[in-house]
Amino acid sequence: MINESKSVLTVGDIEVSKWLNAAEGFELPSNKVVAIHAFQMLCPGCVMHGIPQAQKLHASFSEEHVAVIGLHTVFEHHDAMTEVALKAFLYEFRVGFPVGIDVPLGDGIPKTMQRFQMQGTPSWLIFDRKGNLQIHVFGQLEDITLGAEVARLALEGMPSDIPLHKKLR
Amino acid sequence: MINESKSVLTVGDIEVSKWLNAAEGFELPSNKVVAIHAFQMLCPGCVMHGIPQAQKLHASFSEEHVAVIGLHTVFEHHDAMTEVALKAFLYEFRVGFPVGIDVPLGDGIPKTMQRFQMQGTPSWLIFDRKGNLQIHVFGQLEDITLGAEVARLALEGMPSDIPLHKKLR
Amino acid sequence: MINESKSVLTVGDIEVSKWLNAAEGFELPSNKVVAIHAFQMLCPGCVMHGIPQAQKLHASFSEEHVAVIGLHTVFEHHDAMTEVALKAFLYEFRVGFPVGIDVPLGDGIPKTMQRFQMQGTPSWLIFDRKGNLQIHVFGQLEDITLGAEVARLALEGMPSDIPLHKKLR
Amino acid sequence: MINESKSVLTVGDIEVSKWLNAAEGFELPSNKVVAIHAFQMLCPGCVMHGIPQAQKLHASFSEEHVAVIGLHTVFEHHDAMTEVALKAFLYEFRVGFPVGIDVPLGDGIPKTMQRFQMQGTPSWLIFDRKGNLQIHVFGQLEDITLGAEVARLALEGMPSDIPLHKKLR
Repeated sequence: MINESKSVLTVGDIEVSKWLNAAEGFELPSNKVVAIHAFQMLCPGCVMHGIPQAQKLHASFSEEHVAVIGLHTVFEHHDAMTEVALKAFLYEFRVGFPVGIDVPLGDGIPKTMQRFQMQGTPSWLIFDRKGNLQIHVFGQLEDITLGAEVARLALEGMPSDIPLHKKLR
Repeated sequence: MINESKSVLTVGDIEVSKWLNAAEGFELPSNKVVAIHAFQMLCPGCVMHGIPQAQKLHASFSEEHVAVIGLHTVFEHHDAMTEVALKAFLYEFRVGFPVGIDVPLGDGIPKTMQRFQMQGTPSWLIFDRKGNLQIHVFGQLEDITLGAEVARLALEGMPSDIPLHKKLR
Repeated sequence: MINESKSVLTVGDIEVSKWLNAAEGFELPSNKVVAIHAFQMLCPGCVMHGIPQAQKLHASFSEEHVAVIGLHTVFEHHDAMTEVALKAFLYEFRVGFPVGIDVPLGDGIPKTMQRFQMQGTPSWLIFDRKGNLQIHVFGQLEDITLGAEVARLALEGMPSDIPLHKKLR
Repeated sequence: MINESKSVLTVGDIEVSKWLNAAEGFELPSNKVVAIHAFQMLCPGCVMHGIPQAQKLHASFSEEHVAVIGLHTVFEHHDAMTEVALKAFLYEFRVGFPVGIDVPLGDGIPKTMQRFQMQGTPSWLIFDRKGNLQIHVFGQLEDITLGAEVARLALEGMPSDIPLHKKLR
C-alpha cells in the first residue's frame, strides 16, 4: 500500500543516533530526491529483496539527483541487531550507501519509525527535492514502479533531459 | 548500449504486415509514450527476460500515458516463427498487449528492423509523446532504468502529478 | 503427484516418429536409467522450468549410467509446434540431448502420450535399468528429489561407489 | 571442489558448545546419513543459497534416513555473530533443524572448523550411516547433485525401495 502522504513530514524528521558508511558530520542532502530504505538486518524480506533493490537504485541513479540512504529501524531482537552486527552485515553484503541507526527507545519501536508510523520492514520513504515526504510504502515494490516514481520526483521542476542515470544500462 | 538517437525516425516508421491482439484497424497511438519491444518468439533472452519485462511494464503503467507494444522481428528460422506459431506463443505466454509482425523481406531481416538498424533481439524502441524515437536499446535493460526512462518521457510537458501507474504496487 | 506405476509399461513403449539430436538408427538405451522429459516447445512451464531442469540433469549425471531424453508430445497448437519449429527451438535453447517426436495422431493426443496416460506437459517418465517405468510425474518436481530418485534407480543392483556424476559440482 | 575424504574423521568429531533447535541432551544420530551445513549467519552465500538449500534438503528427505544439521562456524565478526544473534536469525529465517555452535577458540577459527580443515562457509560435510565423512564441499553445490549424493549414502546397504522422501514432490 502506498500512502501519498499529505502530512508535513520532511526529510528533517529523519533522526538517527549514528551514521555508518558516511563521513564525519554527514547530513541528509537537500535539493535532491532522498530515497530512504528502512530495514532490519535480520528481516528476510529486507535481506533477500529490499537491500538488493536499494543497491540497484543506488547503482542506477546519479547521486547528483538522487540519494539512496539506509535506515536501520530495529523494533525486535534488539540484542541481536546491534551496531557492531550491523557493521558486519553492511561489510559482508557490500552495502555502500550511508546507513543511519534509528534512535533506540529502549526495547520498543525506535524514534523515526514511530514518527513516520511505519508498519514494519522493509519500508520506503521517498522525499522530493524540497524535502517533503511523497511516497511511503511498506513491503515489496516492483523495480519498474520504484524507478518511475523516483524519476518523477527527480524531474519535478527540472529540465526533462537532466542526466538521471549513472549509466543507462 | 543506448543510442539516444537524434535521427528523425518516428513511431510512423514502424511498419507491420499484421497486428495481433488488436482490434481491426488498430494504429499506433499518438500523444502518449509508445514502448516497442522487438522480439523473436524463439529467442531465449526474449522469452526469459524481455517478454516478462514488457508484461511488467504493461501491468505497471497507465494505458492513458504509455502504450506497450510487441514487434515480432523475425530475422532467422523464418519457417519456424510463422504467424500461426506466434499466435500460439502469445496465447500460451499470456501476452495481452498488441503485437505487430514486422514486414518480411524474404528470408532476410524484416523491413522495420532494417529501417531502425536494430542489432538483434530483444530490443526496446521508445518514442516520446510527439512520436520521436528517444531510446533504442539492444539487449537487457534493468527494470529500474526502464521504469525511470518511460516515466521521464511520459512526464515531459505534463503536470508532475499525472497518474502514471495503473496501481502503485 | 507421483504415480509409482506398477504397470508393465517399459522403455520399449516409447514410440516416436523421428529422433532429433541423435545419430541415424538411434535407439533408447538399455541397461541404464532412462529419464524422459515430455514437453511442448510452447508450454511456459516446460520452457522456464522443465527444459532447464532436464539440461541440469544431463549435465550432472554420467551418460554411462543415466540417459536424459526429450519427448515432444504435441497435443495442442499442432500447426505451430512442427518439426522445423522444434529444430529451431532446440538450437536456440541449446538442448543437446536426443529428442524424439511423439507419433502424431491427427490433431489429438499423440501415441506415446496416450499410451502412458500423461496428464499434460511437462511430465517426467523415469525407467529403471531393466527398462521398467518406475516414476511418472506431471508438473514441477524439486531438483533435490529428482536427483535422489535418479540416483536410487541408477544404484539399484550396482556397487554403491559407481561414478554417478560427470562432475561432483 | 569435492574432497572425497579418506581420513578417519567421523560424525563424532563434530564438537559444539551448544545445540539450538534441539531438545536437552541432543546428540548427533547414528545409523542414518548426517548432512551438516556449516554456515555463518552473515555470510551472503549462506543466507541466499546455502540455508535455503539445507531447508529444501530437510523438507525433502525422511528424517528416518537423513538428518540435516546446521553448524555455526564463526571465524570472523565474532562480536556480531553471537548466540543471541544466531537465535534471532534462526527464528526470522524459519530454520527448523538443529543447529550447533562450533566451539569458539578466541577470535580465531573454531574447533570443528579447524579439525575438518574447512576452507570457509558455506560448506557441506556429509557422513554415511556408519558415521564416516564421505563428502566435504566448500561453496555452492547443485541441488540435483546434493540430492543424488545424499540418496546414494542413504541407500548404501539398504533395500532400494526404502522411503527416502517425506513426499515425492
